Amino acid sequence: MPIEHAPFSQTEYDRRIALTRTAMQKAGLDVLFVTDPSNQAWLTGYDGWSFYVHQGVILGLEGEPVWWGRMMDKFGGQRTCWMADDNVIGYGDHFVQSTTYHPMQDLAEQLRARGFERARIGVEMENYYYSAKAHQVLSSELKDATIHDATAVVNWQRLIKSDEEIGFIRKAARISEKVIETALEKAAPGVRKNDLVADIMHAGITGVGDDWGDYPAIVPLTPSGLDATAAHLTWDGRPMQAGEATFFELSGCYRRYHAPLCRTVFLGKPSDDMRRAEAAQIEGIAAGLEAARAGNRTCDIANAFMDVLAKHGISRQGRMGYPIGLSYPPDWGERTASIRTEDETVLQPGMVFHFMPALWMDSWGLETTETILITETGAAEALCNIERKLVVKD
Amino acid sequence: MPIEHAPFSQTEYDRRIALTRTAMQKAGLDVLFVTDPSNQAWLTGYDGWSFYVHQGVILGLEGEPVWWGRMMDKFGGQRTCWMADDNVIGYGDHFVQSTTYHPMQDLAEQLRARGFERARIGVEMENYYYSAKAHQVLSSELKDATIHDATAVVNWQRLIKSDEEIGFIRKAARISEKVIETALEKAAPGVRKNDLVADIMHAGITGVGDDWGDYPAIVPLTPSGLDATAAHLTWDGRPMQAGEATFFELSGCYRRYHAPLCRTVFLGKPSDDMRRAEAAQIEGIAAGLEAARAGNRTCDIANAFMDVLAKHGISRQGRMGYPIGLSYPPDWGERTASIRTEDETVLQPGMVFHFMPALWMDSWGLETTETILITETGAAEALCNIERKLVVKD
Repeated sequence: MPIEHAPFSQTEYDRRIALTRTAMQKAGLDVLFVTDPSNQAWLTGYDGWSFYVHQGVILGLEGEPVWWGRMMDKFGGQRTCWMADDNVIGYGDHFVQSTTYHPMQDLAEQLRARGFERARIGVEMENYYYSAKAHQVLSSELKDATIHDATAVVNWQRLIKSDEEIGFIRKAARISEKVIETALEKAAPGVRKNDLVADIMHAGITGVGDDWGDYPAIVPLTPSGLDATAAHLTWDGRPMQAGEATFFELSGCYRRYHAPLCRTVFLGKPSDDMRRAEAAQIEGIAAGLEAARAGNRTCDIANAFMDVLAKHGISRQGRMGYPIGLSYPPDWGERTASIRTEDETVLQPGMVFHFMPALWMDSWGLETTETILITETGAAEALCNIERKLVVKD
Repeated sequence: MPIEHAPFSQTEYDRRIALTRTAMQKAGLDVLFVTDPSNQAWLTGYDGWSFYVHQGVILGLEGEPVWWGRMMDKFGGQRTCWMADDNVIGYGDHFVQSTTYHPMQDLAEQLRARGFERARIGVEMENYYYSAKAHQVLSSELKDATIHDATAVVNWQRLIKSDEEIGFIRKAARISEKVIETALEKAAPGVRKNDLVADIMHAGITGVGDDWGDYPAIVPLTPSGLDATAAHLTWDGRPMQAGEATFFELSGCYRRYHAPLCRTVFLGKPSDDMRRAEAAQIEGIAAGLEAARAGNRTCDIANAFMDVLAKHGISRQGRMGYPIGLSYPPDWGERTASIRTEDETVLQPGMVFHFMPALWMDSWGLETTETILITETGAAEALCNIERKLVVKD
């Protein structure tokens, strides 16, 4: 497969493979079976909406990785992966959603054929696309191998972004700005929520200039009023109303890279309570950005934010952010470090987080967030440039 | 929770619970833990983009089901489920994406508290959202229980649709027509693919009249030329070109219900080969619809299609369809019966399938498909009304 189809340089893929192999050796693994679609794309360039059937990447300690999936997706693999066509392989359609056959029977055969019959095999035990059944079948097929939990082994290698990746995230950030601006501009009493979401999606997919928009790993979250006390409701066809806050949790996406960004709009005159929460949240975010510097830890960001909120009499517990970058549905987070008090990951230049200190209160929600880049020196850089405030349309 | 938030009548939910309990008793289960988001919504009305963390429905043989998820999603549960607020429960944020804690520890506690410590518990072993790790933790927490594979036990109950559900699918079909018409109308040489997809999404989400559009479980698939030999590539920013076929695999979505529909457009003059394939495909679909009648089997549809294709000298193997209805990403299929030669499911009135006899050839792809309803008598009804042909724009 010619490299021009894959979004990154061969040097970049080589860097990723080398990092992953070092981690594999440290974990005592001979081979990794990678199920997470984001990890598959990160290692090989594979890009297609085919993760609803079993597929993955076989990565040994030498040679090219092998992309393995359904036969009809082999052609998509050959058109998107950087490896030689021989290293993109498919299994027959009779394995698909069958109660008689399971694709892991074919995978076991492929692993045996490559000399991994007695190997130490790493699998991603905690991943959407590695089912309990898949593990059961693979384990029973490979009785002479030892199967180890290698959850997040690849994800952790993705934590520090290369310059090429940061370039992609900056493009996504331009799209995120456009998307949020569209939402804030079009929100008005009487506008049906689905019509607003249609405009938001249109803005995101058209993209900015030559930088075309890809689908974000999460659909627009745009709840209003009491629905905004819940974190993850999607839209319906009811018109927006005066007197309600609506939060927009959105992201532009450039070639699977994200830059999530949230803002909240109030139609009418917000209560003093909400105004106070807004002030506390914005002051807390500034404190968080100051704490988000190389050498500090993820918990320092959370604590800096919580200290400010506590000073204003607001208790905010729980997770307030996660690393982002390349992703596929259902989540744009990388599922490694978290911005929370019990997480002590040391911040390093090139890490990118969605700093997400949303407030979900009893009768309303207020989301103001930033995608932030840890820099060489000083406070983190917010990658989007949208004024940090509760947007009031009176 | 007032029932007005849930999309269906209480009678409809009661029907679903009763069907599922009969199946549970047949399978010798005391309780079911339901992970599939579609099954959760079908049983309880739960609707939110929160399936990227562990959540599910606990269904015993009596009483209301219990929706269980992350604490911050409990509020969304209370706003979308039909059950009493007490039967929507949440676990703490420290369980989320942690290497120290696992949500299944909390679930085990909840099952014990409800008297299921020694029960026969059914879990969906083959589901995106029930990970190998989740199964490991749950099994080790509930050593006195017996855990059984209950994959698709709920899905099979969804196969025959109620009148209320068919009403939803008909609304989705109107949106599908609008979406496909938008794609066919706007396709032209020089149009960037992402701009076309933006228009497609906009058409789908705005919906038809009061029937607002929800997000389909699969993003638009719109590959052109050689990319269309692969089944599941998504879009990019390249302009469409004369001399290429582009297939559109799309669905409208009304409150999570789908009606997938595919058509293919050719910009220019298609080859004689493609014209012959088109004729064979259309004749084959008509034969498939004739065979798709109550009392026949799923394989009869596949065989009717393949016989016509063989007569035209085209070999088409593999799966050609699946039941559809309520769904969440990453798949709009129900993962039970398949339209394929080895599947002998008996067709009954109220079943709805995406009959999907696409042709992926060496240098182009041709998708013409229908969402079909099995009726009381006679051939299946195609629910969308879009002329069945290769659309040529010369």
